[in-house]
Amino acid sequence: VRLALDAMGGDHAPDAIVPGAVLFAQQFPAHQVILVGDEARVRPLLGANAGLTNLSVRHASEVVAMDDAASAAIRKKRDSSLRVCFELIRQGEADAMVSAGNSGAVMAGALLVLGRIRGVERPAFAALFPALKGEGRCLLLDAGANVECKPSHLAQFGVIGEAYVRSLLGVARPRVGLLSNGEEDSKGTALTRDALALLRKSDLDFLGYVEGKDIFSGDVEVVVTDGFTGNIVLKALEGSGMAFAGLIRTAVEKAGVSEKLGALLMKPTFAAFKRMVDYAEYGGAPLLGVDGVGIVAHGRSNPKAIKNALKAALHTAEARLTQEIAGSVQRAAAWLPPRGRGAEPEA
Amino acid sequence: VRLALDAMGGDHAPDAIVPGAVLFAQQFPAHQVILVGDEARVRPLLGANAGLTNLSVRHASEVVAMDDAASAAIRKKRDSSLRVCFELIRQGEADAMVSAGNSGAVMAGALLVLGRIRGVERPAFAALFPALKGEGRCLLLDAGANVECKPSHLAQFGVIGEAYVRSLLGVARPRVGLLSNGEEDSKGTALTRDALALLRKSDLDFLGYVEGKDIFSGDVEVVVTDGFTGNIVLKALEGSGMAFAGLIRTAVEKAGVSEKLGALLMKPTFAAFKRMVDYAEYGGAPLLGVDGVGIVAHGRSNPKAIKNALKAALHTAEARLTQEIAGSVQRAAAWLPPRGRGAEPEA
Repeated sequence: VRLALDAMGGDHAPDAIVPGAVLFAQQFPAHQVILVGDEARVRPLLGANAGLTNLSVRHASEVVAMDDAASAAIRKKRDSSLRVCFELIRQGEADAMVSAGNSGAVMAGALLVLGRIRGVERPAFAALFPALKGEGRCLLLDAGANVECKPSHLAQFGVIGEAYVRSLLGVARPRVGLLSNGEEDSKGTALTRDALALLRKSDLDFLGYVEGKDIFSGDVEVVVTDGFTGNIVLKALEGSGMAFAGLIRTAVEKAGVSEKLGALLMKPTFAAFKRMVDYAEYGGAPLLGVDGVGIVAHGRSNPKAIKNALKAALHTAEARLTQEIAGSVQRAAAWLPPRGRGAEPEA
Repeated sequence: VRLALDAMGGDHAPDAIVPGAVLFAQQFPAHQVILVGDEARVRPLLGANAGLTNLSVRHASEVVAMDDAASAAIRKKRDSSLRVCFELIRQGEADAMVSAGNSGAVMAGALLVLGRIRGVERPAFAALFPALKGEGRCLLLDAGANVECKPSHLAQFGVIGEAYVRSLLGVARPRVGLLSNGEEDSKGTALTRDALALLRKSDLDFLGYVEGKDIFSGDVEVVVTDGFTGNIVLKALEGSGMAFAGLIRTAVEKAGVSEKLGALLMKPTFAAFKRMVDYAEYGGAPLLGVDGVGIVAHGRSNPKAIKNALKAALHTAEARLTQEIAGSVQRAAAWLPPRGRGAEPEA
């Protein structure tokens, strides 16, 4: 598998990105990484690893900045590292891409260069959370791509998310829930109530409304919401993980000798805890619904996070997720008529 | 101060409620608790504490169930324990009330019996979170009362929340933020962008958009959002606290002797951590904007949670919050014209 990596995207690019590519290339000698970016800045960072035969550099003269207007930047900066990653996929020179850059620009680039999978109304970002029991994972989507959604978009997120969890996490029949402010059908907004009615007609294992606490419960594998709510929830949970770790750290610092010894003895548990709440372990958010494999890594990604995002891209490409989603969306046309051709409740 | 306590509201009512009232009455002999509910069920639970002079029982023959339709139940069940709590406030026999019952019914009861503070468009539920630094607390509102909001509602939540944090937490000039999916003004929905424009005209210390991670950062004391998003965030964070505690517990159970010893030595830290993430410590969500003091305790409240909710009601009544909010809303009329009389952007 050939992976295009945006060497210039992210808060610590290219310094944190290139070592991440090296880590991956060393661990997966059978797969290729193409570092896309300013050759004059990228090559020196390779150092002694310049000889890795599965690591190459593809020069790109421009950079999409974190604060660029997403759509305009991707249109104008035709030789930006981000856009070139997508062009490599389109030209058949890469099978997947990874960027830690401006997530809006990543989605804009995917839409402009790769386009949507046939039948997909709105591609979405997805975020994976740890769950206490059950399959141990929960996929939340949309995590930020579509701020304003229609009921049919939410219903389709359920279809797309189910395809991801089935093919990537190996869950035979993922349970799908619609995020709301209560479990009763009378709860929610006009948007969620119309989406609820649509999803009740689906052939998914649909649980109806679920609440924020269910994300970690292990009782549901796919949680559907609009990109505004999803992004807020994602960042609130990220913040809570950091806050809880910080609370424990501060408490230990202030504590006496015996507690400090206790903390030392508990190091393996804290390491496991940190792995579980650490975004770096999860390897970024997949773009779901675009016609190609793209992974958005966290802007603050360190080399390990980049390595894990490349691993996620590798597994996603190998799982043939794009074909899987295309099939699911086509089958869903039986209860979710394609836009413009069938009756849509939000008309 | 005289506190009316809904003895019949909550998942474990009246069994968990009455002991909570006893705990409070013992700790605060200068204040009165009126247990409102089915006398035949409440009195036996008092046992040896029936002699407490600051604890009385007021019989109410009906109960609002957790799954009752909120508004209808409060209208029809005129002798329900919940409604009687509000009637006691209205008749001047109580200064504040606490219920662990159906939160929708609590709000409906407050609106029907007490009404809104003059000038308040929509009362809200508020939720308090721990923050790592700064003032150590962050108030999120609306946490679930108003699923569909207008820009002026969100702007007024900022005013009401600021008054709460100023008078209850003693923060001289609370910072107010509007919850969104990114910090740039271009982010958010049509609703949040209009609310952003309104709040920029305010005399509050308004930071603009804040993100989910900022709730715990200590960089903002009041976070404003609609009741749909707020309720989802509240429950997601509650779920994450339980999940993190569960992860550590499971890891320790599976670990070797030295780690188990470490966990034992760290007991004080874990206790502090648990206090910080435990809703029971916070004493419930205040109703803000209704003409009286009401506290909604968690449905799963244990006696300690009820005691803390009574403490919160006591402090709120003593802080004269209702008058404080009335003054703030009146002053805000300079930039937030009262509904129906001034130009409203959402017209």
